[in-house]
Amino acid sequence: MANSRSGDSMLERFVRILSAFDATRSSMSVSTLSRRAEVPLATTYRLVDEMARHELLSREPSGEVRLGLRLWELANRSSPAVDLRQAAMPFMEDIQSVVRQHTQLAVLKDDEVLIIERLSSRGSVVNQAKIAGRMPVHRTAMGMALLAYAPNHVQESYLARHPEAVAVVDAVSFDFRRHLAGIRKRGYASFDGRVDTDTTGLAVPVLGKHGQAIAAIGVVLPLGLENLPAIVPVLMAGARGIARAVGELPD
Amino acid sequence: MANSRSGDSMLERFVRILSAFDATRSSMSVSTLSRRAEVPLATTYRLVDEMARHELLSREPSGEVRLGLRLWELANRSSPAVDLRQAAMPFMEDIQSVVRQHTQLAVLKDDEVLIIERLSSRGSVVNQAKIAGRMPVHRTAMGMALLAYAPNHVQESYLARHPEAVAVVDAVSFDFRRHLAGIRKRGYASFDGRVDTDTTGLAVPVLGKHGQAIAAIGVVLPLGLENLPAIVPVLMAGARGIARAVGELPD
Repeated sequence: MANSRSGDSMLERFVRILSAFDATRSSMSVSTLSRRAEVPLATTYRLVDEMARHELLSREPSGEVRLGLRLWELANRSSPAVDLRQAAMPFMEDIQSVVRQHTQLAVLKDDEVLIIERLSSRGSVVNQAKIAGRMPVHRTAMGMALLAYAPNHVQESYLARHPEAVAVVDAVSFDFRRHLAGIRKRGYASFDGRVDTDTTGLAVPVLGKHGQAIAAIGVVLPLGLENLPAIVPVLMAGARGIARAVGELPD
Repeated sequence: MANSRSGDSMLERFVRILSAFDATRSSMSVSTLSRRAEVPLATTYRLVDEMARHELLSREPSGEVRLGLRLWELANRSSPAVDLRQAAMPFMEDIQSVVRQHTQLAVLKDDEVLIIERLSSRGSVVNQAKIAGRMPVHRTAMGMALLAYAPNHVQESYLARHPEAVAVVDAVSFDFRRHLAGIRKRGYASFDGRVDTDTTGLAVPVLGKHGQAIAAIGVVLPLGLENLPAIVPVLMAGARGIARAVGELPD
């Protein structure tokens, strides 16, 4: 790989440029892009030109640049996330038709919850989750469902890297490992108002062949909903359907 | 950009490697990848190593490579396709809850129909459309809805590049321009069994401020369904909702 004088490879700078865009910042000037990506301005101009030629970036009439449709196409026509999402969609739609709020699919990635899919009804409660966005593990029901069904070494290394996690659920005294065991015993995780104060999250793991979570499905509901306990079996049945659809359960 | 001896830039080869993956070929050996991408084997090994380091590709236990989750994340957390899709989803779900077959969202891209979203019920009819996949314009209802509401110069240049289009709807004699005018008059496009012989496609444009199609929504249904005419107004209402949600119609 051709390296710049600073030692960064072209691909490294390319990834930094893509990483500069997110849901809150979907278009920007080349100079802003250069600053956010920490790539020298002249290099950024040159890379933007070439990326635009391949439609990985596109230029708006204002001169700002954003991600190109071709990048979306290349990344989505074959991807493990898309396969999981496609298998999960019919089950998520069934759940969504019952809860009429938000139904979400996520995986554990780099100590965070990566949102793969989100279905939302018009008029549903506030919800921070964005597709391809990330959420904190120990402040979300989906994160806790994923972690509770992660291999022991994953849980332990998560706790080692996140000492703040043990204090989050109960400020007085809280046994995080016992809390994870409780989730495994009940089969679902729930959280009231950790991310948004007016909502409750409920999540169950999608279990793989060896009992580990390959994903989680969750719903975000208004706090204090009375039929909450009735929703858990709906999620569990959906999770089994997804596991079967991705070949982790026998037909 | 650093160029190889053959004159290809690194980014060019990077794009060719990503393009080698599609829905029918989501993982492959490095040597297959080298052949499909037309990138020399040694270069492919080097690029795969670096792309894997950035999680743009991932290695399977078998040694095969596939697209990485990080690529999906970068491409999806900010993209015009994702914005359109998010705005359209509640309306697509409403349509899907009525038709219970397939509901799709697409845009016109490089003389083809690029599928942005597809909702499908379990047990619904066969359907070739794949998310981020492409379909031919003049053999699909969505393609015809998009083309009928494209600017005149786009229609004319499409016809100039696709002389086969004029013969496709009726082998005897067919006025393609009159057919497009008919779609505009009716407000929707329909096609029986052009892609799959047992299905009917119905599609309407999502119209932008200036009357041009910014997208199309369509449904794929079993051929001969009796309530077909009743579905058209459902699609039209949904298309208006989507146009409003993306700011192309006043609230």
